[in-house]
Order: sequence, then structure tokens, then C-alpha cells
Amino acid sequence: MDREKALEIVKKQITEHRYLHTIGVMETANKLAQLYGANEKKAEMSAVFHDYAKFRPKEEMKEIILEQGMPEDLLQYNSELWHAPVGAFLVEKEVGITDPEVLDAIRYHTSGRPNMTKLEKVIYLADYIEPGRIFPGVDEVRQLASTDLDRALIKAIQNTIMFLLKKGQQVYPATFHTYNDLVSKKGGLLNE
Amino acid sequence: MDREKALEIVKKQITEHRYLHTIGVMETANKLAQLYGANEKKAEMSAVFHDYAKFRPKEEMKEIILEQGMPEDLLQYNSELWHAPVGAFLVEKEVGITDPEVLDAIRYHTSGRPNMTKLEKVIYLADYIEPGRIFPGVDEVRQLASTDLDRALIKAIQNTIMFLLKKGQQVYPATFHTYNDLVSKKGGLLNE
Repeated sequence: MDREKALEIVKKQITEHRYLHTIGVMETANKLAQLYGANEKKAEMSAVFHDYAKFRPKEEMKEIILEQGMPEDLLQYNSELWHAPVGAFLVEKEVGITDPEVLDAIRYHTSGRPNMTKLEKVIYLADYIEPGRIFPGVDEVRQLASTDLDRALIKAIQNTIMFLLKKGQQVYPATFHTYNDLVSKKGGLLNE
Repeated sequence: MDREKALEIVKKQITEHRYLHTIGVMETANKLAQLYGANEKKAEMSAVFHDYAKFRPKEEMKEIILEQGMPEDLLQYNSELWHAPVGAFLVEKEVGITDPEVLDAIRYHTSGRPNMTKLEKVIYLADYIEPGRIFPGVDEVRQLASTDLDRALIKAIQNTIMFLLKKGQQVYPATFHTYNDLVSKKGGLLNE
């Protein structure tokens, strides 16, 4: 599927604001894929469709999580997490994308997971640093992303976990496991 | 066993500095147990023996963890975690304490665990806020501890996790499971 066709499909699923975000993620994912040697075409497709399910009703997402045997603990955590695995399912079912690497990049773009592939890291990070993002700490992650994919990812996940901790909200276990996994592979202290 | 005998036993196992800390934990645990209706005698015993294994050689602790079938993932995380489960084992074996509630309070005083008992919460918190502790954030936890055991505990664990995140260190999974468990039971946002 070419980029124009893909964008046309996703545009009907999401708001104007989210579509602009998607374009930002696509362009950023392209750059990161080039920089770190991930498959550029797959990065583009994953980015275009990463928020495909973002505006589905919660009830529909809940049903899909249960019916498709997705991890049920998702339902005990923030519903913001749901659109990623549900998106992977719907992009396959409704759009006909079957590449498992692309589907996994969509599936894990919010929670992360241990042993992320390069493509998954590129999409997670592109979603975090695309030019439309303006929250505290994003510039530091942008800078890291230009030189070290894993350090940038660790910083992004640290920020995400700290944000949730400060709000007294639960943190989805996969996110913590992703952090621990990346830190253990990177070896020891990172911020000193 | 009376308090004097218990203190005499533990004094031989730890440094002078750690013994003073132990006295602080004992006094704080007594107060918290009274305040929140935990068993005061058990709180006292747990506090006195909580750091019993603190100065055992790492190799000895490692051996005990493996031989006694303790969670092996402990060995992949900070060795500061080891003295708690190893302490529970040695306090039973060498001192002859068999009360499972006291042993669990010792076992989980560093990592925490989901579904902590009141006694376990009292010991975790007493260890964190005893008068000798002076790190950033401890006064806020002290204040919370005078009115709300769970909020104080959540704050202490938040601080611990953030401290590790900022240093780029791994976080032991049981610790964030404890955080998630306490937050989910406390319901929603806590710091706003």
C-alpha cells in the first residue's frame, strides 16, 4: 500500500488534530528509521496507522480485548493503553495489513515491551518526540534521539513513569518491565 | 522473647550505626502499631530483627536465595534487596522466631509486596521514617504517617521508585506491583 492510500484510510478514523500528529510521527519515524537502520517502509506504515483505533468507543475496545484474548490486565489500567493492541487488530482486520512487524510496532507503541525490535523503538519514540509534542522533557529526548536510540527511549519511559507517579496513577507493568529491560541491557547508571 | 534479649542478639549482627537505626525503627514501629491497631509485640520483634542479615557477605546471601528457592529474579536486581528475605530465613533458623507474620514483615520490608498486611506496612514505613532518616521527602512521609498509613506508604514507594528512575537504575518488579496495588485500592488520584 502506498503512503497516500494509507493516509487517506487513516484520515477517516481520527480527528484533524490527531491526523496532524500522525503526519508528524510519520516524518519523524522516517528520519529515525534512516538514522538507525530500521526498515523505512515498515516504519512509515506503522506510523501512519499507529493511532488507527484511537477514537473507537471504549466499549468496542473492551470487547475486542476480551474476545481476542489480549492481556486482560489492560482493562485494569488506563484506557489510553487500549487503542494500541486494538489498533493492531483492527488494522489487520479492516485495512488488511498483515506484516507482523508493523502490527507489533502498532501494538506496543504505548506500553512498550521487553525485547523491543528496532522498528518498535522507532515508532514509540517518534510518537513521543514528533514536532507537535511540547510537554516538559521532550526536547531532552529529541536531542538524545539524534545520537542514541536506546538512551532516548529510556529517558522517554522514565519521564512517562515519573509523570504517572507524580499524579498518583498506576503504571502498566509492561512499561516498567520495558524500562528495566532497556536499563539492564544498557548496563548500569545512565544519568550521571 | 523479650525486647532486651532480642536487642542483645541483633546487636552482635550489625554495626553500631545500624543498631541505632534499628532502635529508631523499633520505637517508630511501636507508635505506628498503636496508632493503626497492629500487634505491638509483633511490630517490636519485626523491627528489632528487620536488618538482622544486613551485613552478611553477598556470597552467603546469594547461596541462601538459591538453596531456599527464593525468587531468583532477586539476583538480577540490587543486592540491597537481598538482606530482607535472607533475614527472614536466618531469624527463623538462628534465632528461632517462627511467627509467620513477623517473618513476612522482615521478608518484605525492602521490596514490599501486593496485599501487604498492616504489620508489614508498619515495618516498611518505620524503616523509612525513623528519626535517623534525613533524605529528601522523608518529612512529608512522616506527616502523612501520622494520619494515613496507606498514603504514607504510597508516597514512600513513589519516592523510592523516582530515586531509582532518576539514577537510571532498575526497579524491582515487586516494588512497582506494590505501588500499583496500593494505588488501585486507594482509588484514583492521590496527589491532587
